[in-house]
Amino acid sequence: MKPFMNEDFLLSSSVAQELYHEMAEKMPVLDYHCHINPEEIAKDRKFDNITQVWLGGDHYKWRQMRSNGVDEYYITGDAPDREKFQKWAETLEKAIGNPLFHWSHLELQRFFGYYGILNGETAEEVWNLCNKKLQEDSMSVRNLIRQSNVTLICTTDDPADDLAWHKVIAEDETFEVQVLPAWRPDKAMNIEKPDYAEYLEKLGTSANMEIKSFDDLKVALKKRMEFFDQMGCRASDHALEYVMYVPETEENIEKIFASKLAGNSITRQEELKFKTAFMAFVAGEYTRLGWAMQLHYGCKRDNNEEMYQKLGADTGYDCINNYAPSAQMADFLNAIKKKGSLPKTIIYSLNPNDDEAIGTILGCFQDSEAVGKIQQGSAWWFNDHKTGMTRQMTSLANLGLLGNFIGMLTDSRSFLSYPRHEYFRRILCELIGGWVENGEYPYDKKMLEKIIKGISYNNAVRYFGFHLEEK
Amino acid sequence: MKPFMNEDFLLSSSVAQELYHEMAEKMPVLDYHCHINPEEIAKDRKFDNITQVWLGGDHYKWRQMRSNGVDEYYITGDAPDREKFQKWAETLEKAIGNPLFHWSHLELQRFFGYYGILNGETAEEVWNLCNKKLQEDSMSVRNLIRQSNVTLICTTDDPADDLAWHKVIAEDETFEVQVLPAWRPDKAMNIEKPDYAEYLEKLGTSANMEIKSFDDLKVALKKRMEFFDQMGCRASDHALEYVMYVPETEENIEKIFASKLAGNSITRQEELKFKTAFMAFVAGEYTRLGWAMQLHYGCKRDNNEEMYQKLGADTGYDCINNYAPSAQMADFLNAIKKKGSLPKTIIYSLNPNDDEAIGTILGCFQDSEAVGKIQQGSAWWFNDHKTGMTRQMTSLANLGLLGNFIGMLTDSRSFLSYPRHEYFRRILCELIGGWVENGEYPYDKKMLEKIIKGISYNNAVRYFGFHLEEK
Amino acid sequence: MKPFMNEDFLLSSSVAQELYHEMAEKMPVLDYHCHINPEEIAKDRKFDNITQVWLGGDHYKWRQMRSNGVDEYYITGDAPDREKFQKWAETLEKAIGNPLFHWSHLELQRFFGYYGILNGETAEEVWNLCNKKLQEDSMSVRNLIRQSNVTLICTTDDPADDLAWHKVIAEDETFEVQVLPAWRPDKAMNIEKPDYAEYLEKLGTSANMEIKSFDDLKVALKKRMEFFDQMGCRASDHALEYVMYVPETEENIEKIFASKLAGNSITRQEELKFKTAFMAFVAGEYTRLGWAMQLHYGCKRDNNEEMYQKLGADTGYDCINNYAPSAQMADFLNAIKKKGSLPKTIIYSLNPNDDEAIGTILGCFQDSEAVGKIQQGSAWWFNDHKTGMTRQMTSLANLGLLGNFIGMLTDSRSFLSYPRHEYFRRILCELIGGWVENGEYPYDKKMLEKIIKGISYNNAVRYFGFHLEEK
Repeated sequence: MKPFMNEDFLLSSSVAQELYHEMAEKMPVLDYHCHINPEEIAKDRKFDNITQVWLGGDHYKWRQMRSNGVDEYYITGDAPDREKFQKWAETLEKAIGNPLFHWSHLELQRFFGYYGILNGETAEEVWNLCNKKLQEDSMSVRNLIRQSNVTLICTTDDPADDLAWHKVIAEDETFEVQVLPAWRPDKAMNIEKPDYAEYLEKLGTSANMEIKSFDDLKVALKKRMEFFDQMGCRASDHALEYVMYVPETEENIEKIFASKLAGNSITRQEELKFKTAFMAFVAGEYTRLGWAMQLHYGCKRDNNEEMYQKLGADTGYDCINNYAPSAQMADFLNAIKKKGSLPKTIIYSLNPNDDEAIGTILGCFQDSEAVGKIQQGSAWWFNDHKTGMTRQMTSLANLGLLGNFIGMLTDSRSFLSYPRHEYFRRILCELIGGWVENGEYPYDKKMLEKIIKGISYNNAVRYFGFHLEEK
Repeated sequence: MKPFMNEDFLLSSSVAQELYHEMAEKMPVLDYHCHINPEEIAKDRKFDNITQVWLGGDHYKWRQMRSNGVDEYYITGDAPDREKFQKWAETLEKAIGNPLFHWSHLELQRFFGYYGILNGETAEEVWNLCNKKLQEDSMSVRNLIRQSNVTLICTTDDPADDLAWHKVIAEDETFEVQVLPAWRPDKAMNIEKPDYAEYLEKLGTSANMEIKSFDDLKVALKKRMEFFDQMGCRASDHALEYVMYVPETEENIEKIFASKLAGNSITRQEELKFKTAFMAFVAGEYTRLGWAMQLHYGCKRDNNEEMYQKLGADTGYDCINNYAPSAQMADFLNAIKKKGSLPKTIIYSLNPNDDEAIGTILGCFQDSEAVGKIQQGSAWWFNDHKTGMTRQMTSLANLGLLGNFIGMLTDSRSFLSYPRHEYFRRILCELIGGWVENGEYPYDKKMLEKIIKGISYNNAVRYFGFHLEEK
Repeated sequence: MKPFMNEDFLLSSSVAQELYHEMAEKMPVLDYHCHINPEEIAKDRKFDNITQVWLGGDHYKWRQMRSNGVDEYYITGDAPDREKFQKWAETLEKAIGNPLFHWSHLELQRFFGYYGILNGETAEEVWNLCNKKLQEDSMSVRNLIRQSNVTLICTTDDPADDLAWHKVIAEDETFEVQVLPAWRPDKAMNIEKPDYAEYLEKLGTSANMEIKSFDDLKVALKKRMEFFDQMGCRASDHALEYVMYVPETEENIEKIFASKLAGNSITRQEELKFKTAFMAFVAGEYTRLGWAMQLHYGCKRDNNEEMYQKLGADTGYDCINNYAPSAQMADFLNAIKKKGSLPKTIIYSLNPNDDEAIGTILGCFQDSEAVGKIQQGSAWWFNDHKTGMTRQMTSLANLGLLGNFIGMLTDSRSFLSYPRHEYFRRILCELIGGWVENGEYPYDKKMLEKIIKGISYNNAVRYFGFHLEEK
């Protein structure tokens, strides 16, 4: 029996161990997509206790606690932090096979030096140990980032955002890690929302203009993109139900937009047409700026209205939406390709069954504008575990060039999540090491190093065009 | 090479073997969903020969015989039982990798003490051995149940059923195993069927009332549910094409119902609306009674009309229906949740690709009303094999708390099917043992025992609230 | 560590090795579905260089080169062959886990005796070695087929084709391998295409008649089927978006046909109705002739219009279409079954998620007209790799009788593709050997030989009714 989560965790063959320890482990971390709050970096926040860090906003953990029949009082309610931690520890015991079990213990090992098992009985010990450690300077947000060997972070930002904290960080010479904005214009696209007009006003203000037409919206977005670009932005991000393609004339898109601004509600068909036009427009701008376009689709959000009323969005009530016609995604990419508006694109679906459809669509739109121009993003959210990652990388390998994969991102709200890169790299090395061990790929260390280091770090440096050295 | 199906069948690591032999193997069997006939228990039926037991009604086996080009004469026709058995034995040889190969040999080992291989050449030997054994008292239905260490069985029953045989069994003090009804009101829901009015009459008679409106139907169902509840019922069961959500006003539902009773045919849209309303109503009643709601969906039945005319339903002509929008399932659960009408719910899809969508939907509706309130049911029917079970449990583990899983059921029409619980437990122990062996979960026997015994038996005892002791 | 791609490539257990080397390896190859050009066999073509063979028309390789950012000039453009080969070699390095990596090295080993690794650095060496070898007589098309131990090849042919090259080959007594036509009437079905009328004229000419109605079309097709049958045809093939079922009266089908011939464009609904009627008709004829009907569905073709304009069809711009309702497929098969028009049928989907739906549909339509009458075809195109094959065979085994599977076909345009049969057989033996090694199937060599040789060769001989001996 292998010891629990030791240095060779998830690495079953000697080649896998070699690839990990000699190649992957040493690479820096480039976290090109996450949801951390730049203000906390700017202020170099520290945390009072482990409940604050772990359970403050992590809806992955909240879901599991609810699955364990824990009362909401101990989850998002007013229970004392120590009691919340107890409930979490008792839940974790049952999370056998769940990535949270591994992530939690990786975080305990890497940041707190705790190599035991967290459960109901050890909760007190872990609580004390973690909270003591959290008082140390080494546990400030910046130092957590530093000790994780992170070179660059992309946050997720609204076009109307003034990026003030990004500026503060950029101007602070004492912090060497790049913290760049990423462009997430969902609110500018979601014309069906009741507060759309309100948002447009906010966006207009940020762009110093009035938005009275779709054309105005485009101008405002362009201005804001210029600003984001100056702030170092290299990537956009979109949350889509699915990648739709319902083309319409510019004239009619303007009519839909005008109708919405006039206070009318719009039909589902009008919504899809507007979003198609919106996406086609921004894709063209991304192409011009050399940005990558990230498409996240296949999610149905806020499914429990009762809890949504109480807790709002991103509180653990989202699920997979299995309606996502691959035909429309292909048609959309073709439409923008024809106009010379297809940027570097990264496609993520929340439905793991989409892996193969995505893998075959990639191949239809690759060209010499970039190596691996169209990418399938790393296993996302509910798929961010050994099964999902192995499946996504195997599918990628079967259908395309795994060697060009830009690899892992945390997608996290937490500063303790960087070991997810370690988790990913172990799974990567296990997969590739297994193939080599099994005689399916040659034991050619030069080539393997290029692949492992590429997927761990270098491919992303090159792909996004960050100001970083390949390692 | 491991010997064929020995005591460590499917258990490849020493931890897996330990978990199985020390923990899972000894647990009783709680078969909370099956299709056995209570009359046969009441009468303690015995069987003349192995063909009667194995091939009398088992459409799983019939399908395979047809796949082998066997004439229907030897399957459901008038061929002598010995000849039918021969055809089955010759078919089984080719069923490499099929669960029937394993189930059949497990049954031969456990009930008949036969450790050889059944094939065309050994058929005569097995025929003689089994038939001799079947004459023994130990092979009566009750003794088969007893020697399988079964503590409780839930059958599947129509609301109009008088449960007479259940009463006989309950009143018979010589039989210690609980045989409880489960509520399956498909006929009361399937308003599109030509014989719907006829069924309502039957149901009305059983409830001692006339059913002239949807309101009447509700009253009748409530009466019958009270009766089922008194008879020990703790679970309902529904066969749905998919979990639909097409809301409509009560008033219009009454109109649809009235139109049907007036002899009109109803539209597909009306059907979906009525079924949505029906399901919302019964869900509320289940909540009130503390029953679990089982949703079985993703099946398209009776696809071969020619054979349906000859043999009727449940004769081996069903397939996966891959249309099942996860969005509607989420919306339905949300709608009943908002009304306080979401009972404990167990979701099964016939399409294994739905595993992940289901797993993410569970998490949206868990709360402190029960531990693991919303469950994904064990791999169902066409998925009831090593691949399907491993996939379902891995998905559950990735997305939720495997430790709270209520585990296996036979879903069978046969009294020889209890070794499917053994089969399931071996696969469970192989999965979890593998994780421990691989350093992915600690070798903590106390915790492992809680998990293994829980999934094997105790979780179901607790979840349904049966009058049984946890072991 | 196992040596790279040695004689036990992909065979990890001793049983797997035994099954492969003693049973599978020695069987001849029956390639019942491919896209090679019979003219090249008739003329016994030789190749000038390895780029011509490998990169002349292989869009699998082109896709990977584009994924690697290679300029089209080096792919389908005018770059010198040596430079194209270099770009391919540099691409291949990164194709870790991709079947092209294995296929390429299998071809280098089997046909060129090269056991090294092809990459950017060895490209020159391999280029020289291959090109020298290609000058030898042993490397003519016929000798490539012979040394691959092929007994029979089915090409893919249009109903209007005069099969002239098939005649030449059949009459040439110096070539002992059967080269038979297969019937692919897509152009006769695709009524939505602008050049449909034009095609009908061509088809009419070949059938020596005018086609003015759907009835005429049927007569013409029947005539051509008679001719194909005389030429040894035993199989048809259809490329379908999905297996649709939209029934319509004969009268209205004639109206749709007439409308099209009158120059009108037809609606999507009319298209689906016509295609349903077309398929039902040809299925009846296949039944009469004893032909097998191959249904290939789930593909969306020519997704990159810009490149389609430049390069035409089959150039690497196709993807999975994930819309394929299993209900319609079941209904279609049922409809033709009722009319006695269900021939032996082989179903292939490009979407691997369809495996289980297909597996359950097969079972609904099996009968004693043939052993394994309804088949799931071997993992197709984008699924033609270890993962896809293992998945497809595991699904088949779970749901039906793997022992009756008719096995592998190349689906290839190249005369070097026969090692794909070797690749398949290794995966087959690994799968079955693993089960035996693991105690899940008895180590009964007689039975195993029947299964392995059956799937490798004999089942296809029997299924199609070719004039070949089982081995």
